[in-house]
Amino acid sequence: MELIDGNKISREILDEVKTEVAGLDGGRPCVAFIRVGEDPASVSYVKKKDRVARELGIESRLNVLPETVSQEALFDLIDGFNADPAVSGILIQSPLPGHLDELAAFRRVRPGKDVDGFHTVNLGLLCQEDDAGFVACTPAGILELLRRSSVSLAGKHVVVLGRSLIVGKPVALLAVQKKDWANATVTVCHSRTANLPDVTRRADVLIAAIGKAGFVTGDMVKDGAVVIDVGINRVPDDSRKSGYRLTGDVEFDSVSPKTAKITPVPGGVGPMTVAMLMKNTVKAFRRQHEV
Amino acid sequence: MELIDGNKISREILDEVKTEVAGLDGGRPCVAFIRVGEDPASVSYVKKKDRVARELGIESRLNVLPETVSQEALFDLIDGFNADPAVSGILIQSPLPGHLDELAAFRRVRPGKDVDGFHTVNLGLLCQEDDAGFVACTPAGILELLRRSSVSLAGKHVVVLGRSLIVGKPVALLAVQKKDWANATVTVCHSRTANLPDVTRRADVLIAAIGKAGFVTGDMVKDGAVVIDVGINRVPDDSRKSGYRLTGDVEFDSVSPKTAKITPVPGGVGPMTVAMLMKNTVKAFRRQHEV
Repeated sequence: MELIDGNKISREILDEVKTEVAGLDGGRPCVAFIRVGEDPASVSYVKKKDRVARELGIESRLNVLPETVSQEALFDLIDGFNADPAVSGILIQSPLPGHLDELAAFRRVRPGKDVDGFHTVNLGLLCQEDDAGFVACTPAGILELLRRSSVSLAGKHVVVLGRSLIVGKPVALLAVQKKDWANATVTVCHSRTANLPDVTRRADVLIAAIGKAGFVTGDMVKDGAVVIDVGINRVPDDSRKSGYRLTGDVEFDSVSPKTAKITPVPGGVGPMTVAMLMKNTVKAFRRQHEV
Repeated sequence: MELIDGNKISREILDEVKTEVAGLDGGRPCVAFIRVGEDPASVSYVKKKDRVARELGIESRLNVLPETVSQEALFDLIDGFNADPAVSGILIQSPLPGHLDELAAFRRVRPGKDVDGFHTVNLGLLCQEDDAGFVACTPAGILELLRRSSVSLAGKHVVVLGRSLIVGKPVALLAVQKKDWANATVTVCHSRTANLPDVTRRADVLIAAIGKAGFVTGDMVKDGAVVIDVGINRVPDDSRKSGYRLTGDVEFDSVSPKTAKITPVPGGVGPMTVAMLMKNTVKAFRRQHEV
């Protein structure tokens, strides 16, 4: 069993992006973060993204709106960034408070500044296998992680556990593309799937994105499979100062001995998501400035 | 084995649409067809759609452009229909001659008039499970055929053979939706899939859309499966006046005895495609007139 080191691989990508940013003509890329309220996980994610952007020479604007903000005020902020030529990309940290329409907010972002890849148009471009679009950072990060770990997907059976708009569907659409680095046979399964272990055991590459701590157990995985654990679940843990620990959707102890390669949580997919956000921001800048 | 009668089921739908059209306030729906050149299959498809529209009380405009038409002239025609409030829906008959950019033409149609469901925005809406969009007629027709044949998909394994933008991907995205009539586990396989018969034999419902006559043989199908044959292949046949006969992607003689239900070719999916186009046209009209 080999551990896929997301920290190391994302570091490589960040170094590449830093070099690229330093060589850019026409100014510096800029990413605008919108966070609503003080959800601790959101605070921590946005802080991390903001810090990484600055390290890379990408300008960063952090905008915090109160928990009670109206949809109109949120839209006004988005509209301002859409219109501002200095802003390359816009990221709205999910989840938003329940009274706000999250999908409507994602759709309010100009497709060319949608570095999160959640806009309707960017999903459509992904279906059309058109690289002009922006692919959501986590799915894009998973494919990049596999590529840089020399896991070829062509003809292989990729099983995606979970059908969310954020991970499950876009990663399935990426893996099935008619491209040299994709060309996989892809199965999407979920909570309603009959005989789920029977389905997941068929996977050459299993991508777990179901959002349930330790859901995938050893009996659900084929010997020699590659397992990508997308879950980031906070499990109560009194032995930690924070009162919780992060665990994935995969029960690491029973699954890892059977795998050829596996990502840990934390330190697997998570850092890749941040790295791909930076890549998307530079891509947006290049497109807007034609450099 | 039970034959799924696409002619009968599509007739039911057309009767429903006819009744609906007769009761519409605010005018009649209108579909504009654009055909380029004289490809015999395209001539025949458009003629059929045009005739069915008229039968239903839907206005129809048939526009034939010469084989040598420029992209600009094609765009001009599309733009005119986009702007014309009397036109509810626009259908560009595929395939276009090689010098034209087909995807660009599909994207030129206003999403709200894209009754073919090929526009980037409508694909994105399908990913987002947003019923406001238009779903491509063949995939929508397949799901409707299954529903009206009392084939429940929930928890079942649907295997889609083919990953085209027109059929394979949208039908997979439909079947996996978190909706009562969907909720399937979905596998997309294709020409690059390893051990293809092993994959197709897992299907409770097998949807063949690979465009190769008789590709699916009896050994590739599980006993009791439901088989949907999307292929419409013209095979040379000297015994026919036309010089050819239509055959599906499924070798009917070896496959049908193993199935619970199967669609014939012709008379299966084909007529459903036309019926769904009419439904989409009425939907477009209703949206534009808010009735």
